[in-house]
Amino acid sequence: MSIRYPNGKAYIPKQNERMNVSKKKSISYGNRGMSLEEDINISNDYYLAKGIAVIHKKPTPLQIVKVDYPKRSAAVIKEAYFQQASTTDYNGVFKGKYIDFEAKETKNKTSFPLKNFHKHQIEHMGQVLSQKGICFTLLRFSANDEVFLLDAKYLCSYWYKQEHERKSIPKSEIEALGHVIPHGLYPRIDYLSVVENIYFC
Amino acid sequence: MSIRYPNGKAYIPKQNERMNVSKKKSISYGNRGMSLEEDINISNDYYLAKGIAVIHKKPTPLQIVKVDYPKRSAAVIKEAYFQQASTTDYNGVFKGKYIDFEAKETKNKTSFPLKNFHKHQIEHMGQVLSQKGICFTLLRFSANDEVFLLDAKYLCSYWYKQEHERKSIPKSEIEALGHVIPHGLYPRIDYLSVVENIYFC
Repeated sequence: MSIRYPNGKAYIPKQNERMNVSKKKSISYGNRGMSLEEDINISNDYYLAKGIAVIHKKPTPLQIVKVDYPKRSAAVIKEAYFQQASTTDYNGVFKGKYIDFEAKETKNKTSFPLKNFHKHQIEHMGQVLSQKGICFTLLRFSANDEVFLLDAKYLCSYWYKQEHERKSIPKSEIEALGHVIPHGLYPRIDYLSVVENIYFC
Repeated sequence: MSIRYPNGKAYIPKQNERMNVSKKKSISYGNRGMSLEEDINISNDYYLAKGIAVIHKKPTPLQIVKVDYPKRSAAVIKEAYFQQASTTDYNGVFKGKYIDFEAKETKNKTSFPLKNFHKHQIEHMGQVLSQKGICFTLLRFSANDEVFLLDAKYLCSYWYKQEHERKSIPKSEIEALGHVIPHGLYPRIDYLSVVENIYFC
């Protein structure tokens, strides 16, 4: 049944109104407005609780300059600075294999900017690949909440070419070379089911 | 040629003087007074530079409470607290396998106190073993600078028994169940040569 105005004229929603509705839905039910990091941490908690894998986010490295030791209470850090991480954010073990990855998101719709990755991280990924570790990146396009797994060998290749070629990875190429991570409730981002299909067959 | 006093009497060093000399030697050349952590970090740098393995110490986890953002300079953390780590200190990849360990030292000469390990760390080690990761502890007896590798399954077993049995692992049992790590110059503590012999045969 169509909706009608009081004057009897049929109500036809405009194209962008429809889009807004579906966009809101996707945010409130699919992603619930959480960051990719929060979603992955919850997924890792699930994997740990179920005995599926042991994967943790590494703490942020800080340079501590000044610490106070007040009587009868814990040491208080009074001056410290954020340091650039020399590795990726996540690592751990799944079925005996070493797992290592970085997670990033972009608001871009058609490509993923390479400036999201630092030189140290790319070098670290290359080192892990040389040691036959499983290494990848999880890329979220936040506009439509799509998450892809892209093997580190592709990311590194694009990253090193960016000086002479483009400074982002086209989404079409991520779709072709990568793998969609299905959304779920438990776990939210079931990237290990995809890892299992790709690396354990 | 023996050393003589001015009165012609031969100088015979006392037993404990001799011991002191050899002890000092062992400190200045063997260990150079560095902590076990420093020695392991240098060894890990060597492994990384030589393409042997990718193993890093995790940053200390901190709870950040207050951050200042002064103009034109980096963010300054003004209040933060040390948090207890929920995992071990070191992990990484060696020949495709996941490596995970904790390093501790004691001044005790005949046993290693179990209070050096926290519940979270022991639980984490159990989880890693369930995932078929390679998990162990490096134990240094600092008095004579001996380092042993002890598989996590033994450490966990002693740790869980401590309520009813002894609160330390006798050195004799560490010698029997563990493996001596030979001292070297490059790398200082070549634990991966031992890991290779134990876990890759």
